Amino acid sequence: MSTKLSDIGEFGLIERLTKDIKIKNPSTLTGVGDDAAIIDYKDKVAVVSTDMLTEGIHFNLMYVPLKHLGYKSVVVNLSDIYAMNAIPKQITVNIAVSSKFSLQAIEELYSGIHLACKYYNVDLVGGDTTSSMTGLVISITALGEAAKEDIVYRGGANETDLLCVTGDLGGAYMGLQLLERENEVFKVNKQMQPQLSGYDYILERQLKPEARKDAVEIFKKLGIKPTSMIDISDGLSSEILHLCKTSGLGCDLYEDKIPMDKQTKAMAEELNINPIVAALNGGEDYELLFTIPLSGHEKVKNDPDITIIGHMVKKENGANLVTTGGSSIPLQAQGWNPLKK
Amino acid sequence: MSTKLSDIGEFGLIERLTKDIKIKNPSTLTGVGDDAAIIDYKDKVAVVSTDMLTEGIHFNLMYVPLKHLGYKSVVVNLSDIYAMNAIPKQITVNIAVSSKFSLQAIEELYSGIHLACKYYNVDLVGGDTTSSMTGLVISITALGEAAKEDIVYRGGANETDLLCVTGDLGGAYMGLQLLERENEVFKVNKQMQPQLSGYDYILERQLKPEARKDAVEIFKKLGIKPTSMIDISDGLSSEILHLCKTSGLGCDLYEDKIPMDKQTKAMAEELNINPIVAALNGGEDYELLFTIPLSGHEKVKNDPDITIIGHMVKKENGANLVTTGGSSIPLQAQGWNPLKK
Repeated sequence: MSTKLSDIGEFGLIERLTKDIKIKNPSTLTGVGDDAAIIDYKDKVAVVSTDMLTEGIHFNLMYVPLKHLGYKSVVVNLSDIYAMNAIPKQITVNIAVSSKFSLQAIEELYSGIHLACKYYNVDLVGGDTTSSMTGLVISITALGEAAKEDIVYRGGANETDLLCVTGDLGGAYMGLQLLERENEVFKVNKQMQPQLSGYDYILERQLKPEARKDAVEIFKKLGIKPTSMIDISDGLSSEILHLCKTSGLGCDLYEDKIPMDKQTKAMAEELNINPIVAALNGGEDYELLFTIPLSGHEKVKNDPDITIIGHMVKKENGANLVTTGGSSIPLQAQGWNPLKK
Repeated sequence: MSTKLSDIGEFGLIERLTKDIKIKNPSTLTGVGDDAAIIDYKDKVAVVSTDMLTEGIHFNLMYVPLKHLGYKSVVVNLSDIYAMNAIPKQITVNIAVSSKFSLQAIEELYSGIHLACKYYNVDLVGGDTTSSMTGLVISITALGEAAKEDIVYRGGANETDLLCVTGDLGGAYMGLQLLERENEVFKVNKQMQPQLSGYDYILERQLKPEARKDAVEIFKKLGIKPTSMIDISDGLSSEILHLCKTSGLGCDLYEDKIPMDKQTKAMAEELNINPIVAALNGGEDYELLFTIPLSGHEKVKNDPDITIIGHMVKKENGANLVTTGGSSIPLQAQGWNPLKK
């Protein structure tokens, strides 16, 4: 019997590979199934997250500078640590490179890695540097710390909780569309200079995203602790469905509440894409999606970094997008899935 | 300026990439430069190690069964944890696969990963499953635990310390030579059955190596604590030079003391290879190389799992192989280096 991986997709594969796992060690508080695993060291807990980026799948070196790539590789991991309401402290970096890369190219990649470590106050504590037959593969593991009682899981949302998001969405996806368009133009005519002016924000969202290291502080300042949280790497739809499934709830998401930058909307119009689709299915925004009790409404409603985009409901209601026109459409996990082509 | 990676090799590259790292967090006890990093969680320390295996470089799927590959991928990481005198507790697993792999193939790989987790009592707590343009890449991070005072670093050896090794050496390398030979025969004539009988031990050393999970217990039983330790992944020469360099010492290694299995010697004779070369430069044995004070001689001399192979000397003497004929040859790090072709 031979089943194509594309037939089951990434989530299907992960479910098959992890369904029989039984925890054996008392220090393993939680394993697979959240943004990060939690290891109990009594005095505090360690939060462990890991991600892999492969050339040709996650990045195109035709338009992604190596320094930006190094920076982003670190950020995507730290984002998972922040999504547990923890502070990242250490990373390990594994890279496999083919002979097409020079020492200078790898140093450029690492200059981005080191820059991210500096900005996020994280130590690079180990790694493996090896060769590959083709292309570049980067695999990073991040370790964070928190007091056990501060950890926020995906599964803690309650009915009537408010659904909130930091920052704005869809920008990284629209930045990618712009880069892809200009790359196509360049492939046809090498003399053409890319037309990128006026779109610096969405380009930065794609090429040099930041993780929400301010979130832990914002929550403290506002006096709220999210009941559930996840980072937005695969698109809002997919992440909302994770929160709903793990918390055993449904939700209503309001189309007109989804925060988007004007550049995101402008680029979407230029490319004739519905900007809501970019926010729902685009991914790579690395904002935080979280729920808070209804009683926290007054605390967050005027915060410039947080937008209330919906609320949790009974599981039976399902997870729905309430459109500007008032109709209710079930959310679908069309999130970024490299195994489904 | 463009420097070929092959001109500086893996160790040269690592040195360039890590030379300016400054530790920022108090919980980071030690970072790069040992088998694993040490993170301080007050009650105990976490020991973190990571490794990456790429198809065509570290393994050939023509003769490496996927289940064995999964098992070995875990073992090589756990070996680094044991080399710090710590107990592995958790792993994360990242894989990138191309579309040539079926669900069943990946499940076969994971059955080996799960088997290793079971045998070594380790929890699989997270990971990333993604796609690659070509081939299979496996990146694993292992987390272990120890009391801070039990950790054994590479740099703790003292002059006159005895140099010891667990098990026997060179077997994994000779197993690989046998598999490579039979694979060449098979490529020429697909009808040929591989001639592997009588070499089960060295084949197992290559295809299904074990990490020395018994070492921590053996040390306790014998009442010794190594002054320095490293696992033998790149070959005895390379590992001895690591211990010498980090400890600021030299050493005398005695050729006639290096433990080798009779199958290792027989295969070396059949292939006209000096078996000492397999032990010194072959790698992948995953035995432990360590030093103990001279006073520990009586305690280890009769232990069936430990062989005294030399002793530490002043740095000025250098690191030398004392041959059976009595001459002294400087050891060279000709260890397995995928970046040097």
